[in-house]
Amino acid sequence: MDRIKSEELKKKICSAEEAAALVTPGTVVGVSGFTSAGYPKLVPGALAKRAESGEDMRLTLISGASVGDELDGALARSGAVARRYPYQSNKSLRAAINEGKIAYADIHLGQLSRLVRTGVFGPVDTAIVEASAILEDGSIVPTMCVGSADTLVQCARQVIVELNTAVPDLTGLHDIYTPQMPPHTKPIPICHVSDRIGQPSIPCDPAKICVIVLSETPDAGGPGTAPDEVTGRIARNLVAFLKGEQAAGRLSDLLPPLQSGVGGTGNAILSELAHSGMQGLSLYSEVLQSAVLDMIDSGTVAFASGSALSFTPEYQQKFYENFEEYRKKIVLRPQEISNSGEVIARLGVIAINTAIEADLSGNVNSTHIGGSRLMNGIGGSGDYARNAGLTVFVTPATAKNGALSCIVPWVSHVDHTEHDTDVLITEYGAADLRGKTPYERADLIIETCAAPTFRPQLREYMERVKKECRDHHGIPVLK
Amino acid sequence: MDRIKSEELKKKICSAEEAAALVTPGTVVGVSGFTSAGYPKLVPGALAKRAESGEDMRLTLISGASVGDELDGALARSGAVARRYPYQSNKSLRAAINEGKIAYADIHLGQLSRLVRTGVFGPVDTAIVEASAILEDGSIVPTMCVGSADTLVQCARQVIVELNTAVPDLTGLHDIYTPQMPPHTKPIPICHVSDRIGQPSIPCDPAKICVIVLSETPDAGGPGTAPDEVTGRIARNLVAFLKGEQAAGRLSDLLPPLQSGVGGTGNAILSELAHSGMQGLSLYSEVLQSAVLDMIDSGTVAFASGSALSFTPEYQQKFYENFEEYRKKIVLRPQEISNSGEVIARLGVIAINTAIEADLSGNVNSTHIGGSRLMNGIGGSGDYARNAGLTVFVTPATAKNGALSCIVPWVSHVDHTEHDTDVLITEYGAADLRGKTPYERADLIIETCAAPTFRPQLREYMERVKKECRDHHGIPVLK
Repeated sequence: MDRIKSEELKKKICSAEEAAALVTPGTVVGVSGFTSAGYPKLVPGALAKRAESGEDMRLTLISGASVGDELDGALARSGAVARRYPYQSNKSLRAAINEGKIAYADIHLGQLSRLVRTGVFGPVDTAIVEASAILEDGSIVPTMCVGSADTLVQCARQVIVELNTAVPDLTGLHDIYTPQMPPHTKPIPICHVSDRIGQPSIPCDPAKICVIVLSETPDAGGPGTAPDEVTGRIARNLVAFLKGEQAAGRLSDLLPPLQSGVGGTGNAILSELAHSGMQGLSLYSEVLQSAVLDMIDSGTVAFASGSALSFTPEYQQKFYENFEEYRKKIVLRPQEISNSGEVIARLGVIAINTAIEADLSGNVNSTHIGGSRLMNGIGGSGDYARNAGLTVFVTPATAKNGALSCIVPWVSHVDHTEHDTDVLITEYGAADLRGKTPYERADLIIETCAAPTFRPQLREYMERVKKECRDHHGIPVLK
Repeated sequence: MDRIKSEELKKKICSAEEAAALVTPGTVVGVSGFTSAGYPKLVPGALAKRAESGEDMRLTLISGASVGDELDGALARSGAVARRYPYQSNKSLRAAINEGKIAYADIHLGQLSRLVRTGVFGPVDTAIVEASAILEDGSIVPTMCVGSADTLVQCARQVIVELNTAVPDLTGLHDIYTPQMPPHTKPIPICHVSDRIGQPSIPCDPAKICVIVLSETPDAGGPGTAPDEVTGRIARNLVAFLKGEQAAGRLSDLLPPLQSGVGGTGNAILSELAHSGMQGLSLYSEVLQSAVLDMIDSGTVAFASGSALSFTPEYQQKFYENFEEYRKKIVLRPQEISNSGEVIARLGVIAINTAIEADLSGNVNSTHIGGSRLMNGIGGSGDYARNAGLTVFVTPATAKNGALSCIVPWVSHVDHTEHDTDVLITEYGAADLRGKTPYERADLIIETCAAPTFRPQLREYMERVKKECRDHHGIPVLK
């Protein structure tokens, strides 16, 4: 076991069941993991078995972001989790949350670590983190994400490490920098996407590592969705808009760093950028998807900073096999840094996130269907939207095969306000909302972004607003 | 005229009418001013006369924040303004905006300067700034605010200075630091409220100063509202909450810097803090009100950083007479710095802002009545709310002498989302919403913050939500 550099720590290897037995019911458990990358895969299963055998676990579970089904799915189905923060995208967990069986609150990913340190969720009893190596001093080299593992390890009473040899030793990929708490906070000294400001492993007192579990289970990994007709058109509208801003002198010839949300639209945008002829781009994002490796290969992307690598199994292999080359052009940071408003603002990041629906004021719903059904969560979109140099939201103009308009008079849940939405883009066009009045924004969104079939009824709504309201600044909910 | 240190510039003194004649209709005019402090008072009147005499001025007017009636009122009533950014609180202007006669858009005050530099509002043709002195190199010492004067001067083609001798020479009060644009941005090196990082005057090429107008008109000044029964109870609930957080170890014994909004509730909070026995507090805020001087006198406040001094005439005199002492404990910064998310987050500021209404999810309406009538604007509340170490919103539980509840099922306009509201406080109590589910938040807000007379109908709404919704995460608008 040459991935454990400390002889003392080698003695702490045990089974997943023995490790899970160390977790006390009713406590706060923090886990590594960020979008199906870098999460512990064996101990959670053993914890689930305790719950299935009738033990009342009532755990509060805190991760970086969403995690794989072996963790969120298994624990949700077993009933082991009472409370869950700050984000999720698991079918079983989502169902339990929407049934009111698991308490959940959305937290901005960039603010999670600070809240954990402040003690808002109570003391963290156990941290369970996946590692690709453990160094002599007890410090932990993560696998395919950092997430909030740095802070969870720092705050936890005890640390369980899952050492995963399905992943090579990834030393040199991560840049661990954990801010102090006010009044001792200093500037986060990142001025370029590629700046490394911390150390390659998560500091950990070896005495806090109670056990080590050996694992060979690969990450479930992220989706490899190919662009479809609609996401392709959205991506082309985005790239055309950015080129227009460059031509007008409002964006520099070398674009500022880009942040792009996860999923099909995100992949389509990356794909379109790869074919745009642009070279030397940089990414300052939270999740880096498979397409990023191709963009690095082609020179489209010169450097990519994130908190997780959410690759398909095929791209995981490609990354592992060429790790020494890729690690010169990729850095993984704690989510407190990848999603730091300070750094995002300083770099002038162009933030591109997906909306579930957007309204005529420019408000965006990222989280709920019909105001009461949670989809995934706000994730890091707010960290970026609120602090970016340019904030873009993208959405298909319609959902349910064209039956529903994603442009509505009023969103059923507001995650990002009109004040933060600079540009709204659908497959029909890009609406630049900056400096526009509420009525100007509404007209522009209808004529540019809405599907033509829904424009007449949206125009009718605005006609009613203009006629029925005594005051004319803002678009209310009409009966 | 010993306030003008350059002999060349002394030759540029002219009348307000001559200065106003230099402004070209249809252009963008930027003015100094932030909450009835430090705004030009003579040239705007002369501009208004041009409009009153029938000239089609169609100006786009950009200020730091709200300004006095001699500026916003006069120009609005004369019809000289076509577009207005980023904030206002003037009766005539508000009426014109709500009638749809003046185009207005709310902009986060901390983001205004960046947007001006980017060119989102078009090129700034003329900057009209109030000064207490003009130095040999052409640089401008502001009066009672900085606002966005630094950036407006930097971007303007020509600069008109109103040199105001109703104010003493305030050299040494201001700290002018204007960030560069990405990719050249560096950390803003403020780690303590009292850190001075820039220079005492606004850099300006003397050739850009086209004329200088002499003025002796004092600032209209801010309100001196005494706490009433309700705001006093809100303030006591806030201080009790903060002390509870200190006792629980979630806030340090010496509180982090405080930000407090303008107006009666803000004054009541400062007054309650002054009587709390706390000493050595610091303020990192945008507007410093009269009460701050008393708090400095008593030692309650050790240092105050802001972008404007909005004092009553009595406190203006007190400040002027003791300027050499007060300037050791007060600094005025550009609003890009006073409202910088980077600095606010680093300092762990406790942000306290007023809501018009708040809803059961924790969303806050700061700007609109009934969704279509603008009151003032979002101002800097979003800059603080989104980045603070602790975000508090305060509101009386009722309005219109108890006839309306300020706690509603759904706010009619969302300025701050549930994700950003940590604590909601009314005269009935403080609801700590952090880490709570939507239903938990709603129940807590009803039982803690709502007026007892409105609790039954709010409980009934939640009963309906729980019964009628198929999913149970989030509080929708029910028919």
